[in-house]
Amino acid sequence: MTLIYLDNNATTKTAPEVLEAMFPYFEEQYGNPSSIYEFAKKSNHAVKNARAVLKDFINAADEKEIIFTSCGSESANTAIRGVLNMNKNKRHIITTKVEHPCVLNLYKTLEKQGYKVDYIGVNSNGELDLAELEQAVNYDTALVSVMHANNETGVIFPIEKISEIIKSKNKETKFFVDAVQTAGKIPIDVQACGIDLLSVSGHKFHAPKGIGVLYVNSKTAITPLIIGGHQERGLRAGTENVPYIAGLAKAAELASDGLKYEATEVKRLRDKLESGILRNIYNSRLNTAVTNRVPNTTNIGFEYIEGELILLHLSDSGICASSGSACTSGSLEPSHVLRAMNVPFTSIHGSIRFSLSRYTTEKEIDTVIEVMPKIIDKIRTLSPYQDELEALKKLKSSNYQG
Amino acid sequence: MTLIYLDNNATTKTAPEVLEAMFPYFEEQYGNPSSIYEFAKKSNHAVKNARAVLKDFINAADEKEIIFTSCGSESANTAIRGVLNMNKNKRHIITTKVEHPCVLNLYKTLEKQGYKVDYIGVNSNGELDLAELEQAVNYDTALVSVMHANNETGVIFPIEKISEIIKSKNKETKFFVDAVQTAGKIPIDVQACGIDLLSVSGHKFHAPKGIGVLYVNSKTAITPLIIGGHQERGLRAGTENVPYIAGLAKAAELASDGLKYEATEVKRLRDKLESGILRNIYNSRLNTAVTNRVPNTTNIGFEYIEGELILLHLSDSGICASSGSACTSGSLEPSHVLRAMNVPFTSIHGSIRFSLSRYTTEKEIDTVIEVMPKIIDKIRTLSPYQDELEALKKLKSSNYQG
Repeated sequence: MTLIYLDNNATTKTAPEVLEAMFPYFEEQYGNPSSIYEFAKKSNHAVKNARAVLKDFINAADEKEIIFTSCGSESANTAIRGVLNMNKNKRHIITTKVEHPCVLNLYKTLEKQGYKVDYIGVNSNGELDLAELEQAVNYDTALVSVMHANNETGVIFPIEKISEIIKSKNKETKFFVDAVQTAGKIPIDVQACGIDLLSVSGHKFHAPKGIGVLYVNSKTAITPLIIGGHQERGLRAGTENVPYIAGLAKAAELASDGLKYEATEVKRLRDKLESGILRNIYNSRLNTAVTNRVPNTTNIGFEYIEGELILLHLSDSGICASSGSACTSGSLEPSHVLRAMNVPFTSIHGSIRFSLSRYTTEKEIDTVIEVMPKIIDKIRTLSPYQDELEALKKLKSSNYQG
Repeated sequence: MTLIYLDNNATTKTAPEVLEAMFPYFEEQYGNPSSIYEFAKKSNHAVKNARAVLKDFINAADEKEIIFTSCGSESANTAIRGVLNMNKNKRHIITTKVEHPCVLNLYKTLEKQGYKVDYIGVNSNGELDLAELEQAVNYDTALVSVMHANNETGVIFPIEKISEIIKSKNKETKFFVDAVQTAGKIPIDVQACGIDLLSVSGHKFHAPKGIGVLYVNSKTAITPLIIGGHQERGLRAGTENVPYIAGLAKAAELASDGLKYEATEVKRLRDKLESGILRNIYNSRLNTAVTNRVPNTTNIGFEYIEGELILLHLSDSGICASSGSACTSGSLEPSHVLRAMNVPFTSIHGSIRFSLSRYTTEKEIDTVIEVMPKIIDKIRTLSPYQDELEALKKLKSSNYQG
């Protein structure tokens, strides 16, 4: 059975070019970048070179604004706590109801520590309520934290506009953008978008798990989360993970080169998958039809059936997809993102995210379009909602005829 | 020019077996361990298996006591802040004057945040003053933090005895041991030694840079440093670095198998290097002659000359050594460890650490023994202390004759 991996928003395979770029730094150029002898210069240079690549990748103004971390979560924790520690008199934070669970968990902890956190909602298409955001910003707002695109729906948020809103209401408020789901899929320009801090995770775009970036612009002061050595200009202690840093740089280069392919070919395959499923399965329902989505993601609800069951049947066919973020897998709670969108309860439990990559082939998509109706057919027979399904079937077929 | 790498306390080369163990998890078994489909089970299993290996590596009682982190610094920050956060009413910490700079920097930050920190001193051999330690523990002591062995001198501290002292004075005081310099070099038994928390860094024993472990025994509660997903039972968010975790397990297995080789062969080569230098270079001086040292480390002072100059000459001969921790390279301050030992000022600036590994060969050691006198001869001619050197030479030669 061949693998069809459509869960690239959870994690991706390491690109062979990335593996090749990392390779020399394990057994050969393994010097500690901080050491003064000649042998260490090559690993030191690899880190420097990667910093320049990552600077260009997000269009930072200066290489000093790039901090290498161990993951997106570390980047987010460093950004959020770092800003709050530097602005201890301010106690107000604004974020969204649809942030990644890892960011939401941190805000829940901060609420217990006395911070007031406003969670901005989304409409039924998963688009952010900018009026609510504008109203929420006040003199006490230390931080606004918004993801660049949602991991479950792929909906892209208008970061530049959000930055303008924030700064027009409070110039001192810092703006943190979680770009874990956009890096490598769509262009990122921190300067054009007025971003103060931004997090990136390598394993979402074909670097390995265990490497991330935190961008902090030169106007923004933070405290380090991991205190210790002088690495990363004192903002992140720990001997640099040279192989992964070199690999991340290669992944960023590949991703930059591949942005057009994402926007055209990956999008074409995603759209084909989406319309193929919607056409062939009467109880399917697109959870958001917004065109402004990352090109690789679709989220489709299957009414009156259970998502976990779909995933297990897909798994039996060698197809990997997910019902939400991997970080919340196993939880029986329906997705907080779909809840915030008011996805009907008939559909929310049966929602599946497919996320493609540049390695996804037409043949794979064709297979999924072929396999899905059979799986859904089978599961429908187990549903206790047979009458509702029958009604839905009639409605859809009359719609198609009409 | 062939490389002679004698700076294994700074970082090590990744073992080929470790690289091989990591390899499948980049391009093949790249599933997110949290995902529910079949494909992800192999990466999930790799993490589970590694946890069992690491449990045995340090003789933890339970796999749940093993937390994978991104480095020794993260482990230390998590341990220290985690314990303090859970004991907010206690404001006293005890550590040593010779801890790794990364740990000391964190304590300096905590002092600014209102903690009282006592720094226990060492004698001229680098051995900890246990009476001072005993006196320092009081009802308010939240944490005692002592390294297992010093990174610069290799001196091993009597962890079991220290634990007994702490617990006899305050049963609630938690004991954190920084084992970054001992893991893989000498056995670690957290249960026998009465250790509550312990940090390990993979890249000091032939795993790559960017992977660490934090041991927290079941009686000790901590808060996470990186808050977010449910990974590591909620104590460390972030998608698991599966390749490095698998590699770390292999490195731990190799190290366990090699402990006898460390204690005999690596030690023999270290002793040969040490005596070879001391015999052939009249202005050399062993900074500590304690026998209870990690088998791979020696720290030798060269009186009246500059350490940086020695290192650069060694580098020109392809030999890597260091003058302190890599984290403080480039600083002109003499080593805080050697200062705490009251190493005479005539020698402290000219002190060099050689740290071997299981890859160090007899031929390499012979080469260094041959090369060092030539380098030191050359540098001595640049010293402004010619009279003192002359006197020293006479003294040593009369000593040898006498």
